[in-house]
Amino acid sequence: MTSGEGEAKGGRTGRRPGDAGTREAILDAAREAFGRRGYTSASLRAVAAAAGVDPSLVLHYFGSKQALFVAAVDLPIRPREVLPGVLAGDPAGAGARVVRFFVGIWDAAANRGAFLALIRSAVSDEPAARMLHDLLTADGPEAALRDLGFPDPELRAALVGSQLVGLAFARYVIRLEPLASADADAVATLIGPTVQRYLHGDLPVPTPEERP
Amino acid sequence: MTSGEGEAKGGRTGRRPGDAGTREAILDAAREAFGRRGYTSASLRAVAAAAGVDPSLVLHYFGSKQALFVAAVDLPIRPREVLPGVLAGDPAGAGARVVRFFVGIWDAAANRGAFLALIRSAVSDEPAARMLHDLLTADGPEAALRDLGFPDPELRAALVGSQLVGLAFARYVIRLEPLASADADAVATLIGPTVQRYLHGDLPVPTPEERP
Repeated sequence: MTSGEGEAKGGRTGRRPGDAGTREAILDAAREAFGRRGYTSASLRAVAAAAGVDPSLVLHYFGSKQALFVAAVDLPIRPREVLPGVLAGDPAGAGARVVRFFVGIWDAAANRGAFLALIRSAVSDEPAARMLHDLLTADGPEAALRDLGFPDPELRAALVGSQLVGLAFARYVIRLEPLASADADAVATLIGPTVQRYLHGDLPVPTPEERP
Repeated sequence: MTSGEGEAKGGRTGRRPGDAGTREAILDAAREAFGRRGYTSASLRAVAAAAGVDPSLVLHYFGSKQALFVAAVDLPIRPREVLPGVLAGDPAGAGARVVRFFVGIWDAAANRGAFLALIRSAVSDEPAARMLHDLLTADGPEAALRDLGFPDPELRAALVGSQLVGLAFARYVIRLEPLASADADAVATLIGPTVQRYLHGDLPVPTPEERP
């Protein structure tokens, strides 16, 4: 609804190009469009129309469709910055803390649109998939684990990512019960030990193999 | 490419409506269309055109768009039928066997299109999400675990599903290394213990909670 209301709220009421509200209206419209149609299908023109602004203004603010996408699905947290805090403290409870933190972020309805836009676009579009890849590696958890001195940060980040993305898919996209309705603490109790082993367990590092 | 070749291979070469090849050409075109555009956006007319047949023939064979989708993403295995065989034998190795089996099915390139079509459609379309939900619950792993007498089959199936869907996402969609290039045995060694705990571990069953 946010984007649909963009014109009534913004474009016709004298909002000037410099207004922070215009930028936010464009981002709302972009999240809606990328979430609904995916990265490739959502056009800058449609985003601009939904936000009630001229397409040139979208380019003025963001420079390119890719930059708009990155800004629109901008994660409300910086894994590289927040993970050290989450992992600080008793190492034995690190897995459960990561899961509880992750679920807490997703459960905040305001964030879910951006996450779903990212996952939806990543599944259908190669550029978005590459962006999600980078967000989980060089720009995200992998970098955080490397900063913190974890051995094999690439492997551990990939394993943690596989469980957390799958949890998001099960809980928020296909809503598998009882995972969909469980509270964050219950989910952390169930899935925390998995993340704990991926973070701190003794793991064999696989060697790459060519697959068909 | 399969669907693009459909017309040249099929519709113009005297293939009769009863031919099994026509049905296959429609299914190939449907997998391509659902995989690329998602369930809602892919039209029966476009599928028919790609397969080189009249739209009425698609309805003749499949009855409805939903039935065509179910047939197109038809999993090459029946979880309810194959899981008992995979779980038979040493219970301590069940988790690793499930992961190795799952990766083996996905690694077969011929199956990947159907799986990706299902995941892509599920992420963008409510009807497809409901179908994937049912495939993982009443019609799939949950039913298999129930048949086999596992306690809390709904919870265990949801947890196994969350890890395996996330693994597929990490390995095949965003291609997180080293998971993307590891062989099936290595992946089973890394992720098997997770599935093992979800299948045979002592798990607290969460009580549903209202979330905002």
